[in-house]
Amino acid sequence: MQNRDAGHTPVTVIGLGLMGQALAGAFLRDGHPTTVWNRTAAKAEHLVAQGAKLADSVGEAVAASPLVVVCVSGYDAVHELLDPLDEVLHGRVLVNLTSGTSEVAGETAAWAARRGGSYLDGAIMAIPQAIGTADAVILYSGPQEAFDLHEPVLRSLGAGTTYLGGDHGLSSLYDVAVLSLMWNILNGFLQGAALLGAAGVDAAAFAPIAKAGIGTVADWVSGYAQQVDDGAYPALDATIDTHLASMEHLIHESEFLGVNAELPKFIKALADRAVADGHGGNGYAAMIEQFRKPVEVRI
Amino acid sequence: MQNRDAGHTPVTVIGLGLMGQALAGAFLRDGHPTTVWNRTAAKAEHLVAQGAKLADSVGEAVAASPLVVVCVSGYDAVHELLDPLDEVLHGRVLVNLTSGTSEVAGETAAWAARRGGSYLDGAIMAIPQAIGTADAVILYSGPQEAFDLHEPVLRSLGAGTTYLGGDHGLSSLYDVAVLSLMWNILNGFLQGAALLGAAGVDAAAFAPIAKAGIGTVADWVSGYAQQVDDGAYPALDATIDTHLASMEHLIHESEFLGVNAELPKFIKALADRAVADGHGGNGYAAMIEQFRKPVEVRI
Ligand SMILES: NC(=O)c1ccc[n+]([C@@H]2O[C@H](COP(=O)([O-])OP(=O)(O)OC[C@H]3O[C@@H](n4cnc5c(N)ncnc54)[C@H](OP(=O)(O)O)[C@@H]3O)[C@@H](O)[C@H]2O)c1
Ligand SMILES: NC(=O)c1ccc[n+]([C@@H]2O[C@H](COP(=O)([O-])OP(=O)(O)OC[C@H]3O[C@@H](n4cnc5c(N)ncnc54)[C@H](OP(=O)(O)O)[C@@H]3O)[C@@H](O)[C@H]2O)c1
Repeated sequence: MQNRDAGHTPVTVIGLGLMGQALAGAFLRDGHPTTVWNRTAAKAEHLVAQGAKLADSVGEAVAASPLVVVCVSGYDAVHELLDPLDEVLHGRVLVNLTSGTSEVAGETAAWAARRGGSYLDGAIMAIPQAIGTADAVILYSGPQEAFDLHEPVLRSLGAGTTYLGGDHGLSSLYDVAVLSLMWNILNGFLQGAALLGAAGVDAAAFAPIAKAGIGTVADWVSGYAQQVDDGAYPALDATIDTHLASMEHLIHESEFLGVNAELPKFIKALADRAVADGHGGNGYAAMIEQFRKPVEVRI
Repeated sequence: MQNRDAGHTPVTVIGLGLMGQALAGAFLRDGHPTTVWNRTAAKAEHLVAQGAKLADSVGEAVAASPLVVVCVSGYDAVHELLDPLDEVLHGRVLVNLTSGTSEVAGETAAWAARRGGSYLDGAIMAIPQAIGTADAVILYSGPQEAFDLHEPVLRSLGAGTTYLGGDHGLSSLYDVAVLSLMWNILNGFLQGAALLGAAGVDAAAFAPIAKAGIGTVADWVSGYAQQVDDGAYPALDATIDTHLASMEHLIHESEFLGVNAELPKFIKALADRAVADGHGGNGYAAMIEQFRKPVEVRI
């Protein structure tokens, strides 16, 4: 197969939940002939009104396009839908944007290969409202030829269309890594909001200062990455010992104001271990070694 | 006292560690007559070369200016230095930029009041290299008149000079709240880097995607703050139930790759409790209620 004019590549979308509908809508807006299928057919109605073709069966939907995008609630549903199809995948590229784990992504790639299909695993780092915009980051992993062939079409889903490499598991791994970062940021903000709230400060008053703080730390990330990759953690600003003194203040404030001190204590317990390992005089990036250890120490 | 021409307000800086030197340097650059004192006098040398006056004693340093800035390693040192002075504080504004807790800030304010001085507690949300620049956020709390009187001079330390309110404890509270956010972001990044590192991905490859993710979450903060203040948490994007499914993936990936799974488990344990409290169908901001609870549940 050759790369085609992106505007004319037919594409199929299977699964029309909140996300699948957004994906199909973005393909349609860019003029791709779009075939859709969903267990509950009614969810296809407004897409059909925008020009989508509704397939009568999953098999018909897959057969309609060289590029088949699946986005359902989980891998069990993926297999329930696609396992019965057998040979129809032959020569097609299956792109699975359903969230999962790297292990299952690898298994699904092997499953698709047995049916003669190419498999790209993907992860959507965006909410449905952002699909098709400059803000949508969507990660892909699997065979580079398959990505290169369909990149122009996939780019309809967002400007942040990113190929990570041949290992099918990479998109799931990046997905949970970024989600973990996201939960940590939100937990940090909520911990701060709880603390300030107990002293009578609105979260709205904390928000702009928190946002400035988040922006500051965002600029540190590439420097931290460099130290992590180098395995050397010189303290360019503050040492872990200095951080520990402030962590004690955080615990003290939390207990003094009667809010939950578990997260502060968890943070300090990790830093204490880094000090015990001899990293007290190093910068915070030395904490990477704690995150690499598969220990389970009760705090 | 009236507000003076900022360029001619004399100021004293006590404590010339990494931070105190940066503070004195910024005052000097803006043309303020600057008196300095440090336990180890040698640290004043290059400031004296830039025009600072080195006082012979703490008392002489305090007596030299209507505005006295203290920045030493802890409140113990603050008291060791200033307790013997007694009446010399009378009519002056003492600004303490030493990190501490809200409780001790209140005590120090009472101590200064007994000596007839005005007291502002402050927190520096910047590294020494950023002092005097547009990037430096410095928070102040205490009597508004004292802040207003000296704001033009204090602004020499950074464009982000911010007055939080009359309660002396506010700057320490905001300080630990922002630090907590910072540690959480760094931990989230390092957890992700450890996970990807175990799969052979460099932290440098993760950094740009992590930075984009941090930027995305920064834009959510004001919406979350609104929900926290309203006490209503409609799921505008994903529900806590949906987050939980991905948290399980994160734990699975961490264990599968043999990296530390404590932080993933901690995150999930908090979310499980939110679900147990009936918030599974709500957005992530509902987690605020877990952070408010002074519970200590072992995970
Ligand atoms: N929403 C987001 O913000 C977001 C962001 C990033 C990634 N994602 C990922 O995108 C995927 C889909 O999420 P969503 O928000 O679209 O979920 P959703 O609104 O709950 O939709 C789930 C979809 O899966 C289908 N489905 C579930 N079980 C099925 C089965 N056994 N057989 C056939 N179809 C089945 C549903 O069909 P019916 O309509 O017939 O029920 C529906 O089309 C998930 O993996 C999610 O993690 C979502
Ligand atoms: N560095 C940063 O990035 C940063 C950022 C934000 C806030 N801060 C805060 O700023 C404050 C100062 O930090 P720093 O980085 O300047 O620390 P530092 O470089 O370790 O300097 C400590 C200062 O405290 C003095 N000191 C300590 N104990 C004393 C005592 N008993 N009597 C008299 N002087 C004493 C030291 O005097 P000698 O020179 O004689 O030892 C020195 O001037 C701390 O509260 C810190 O948390 C620092």
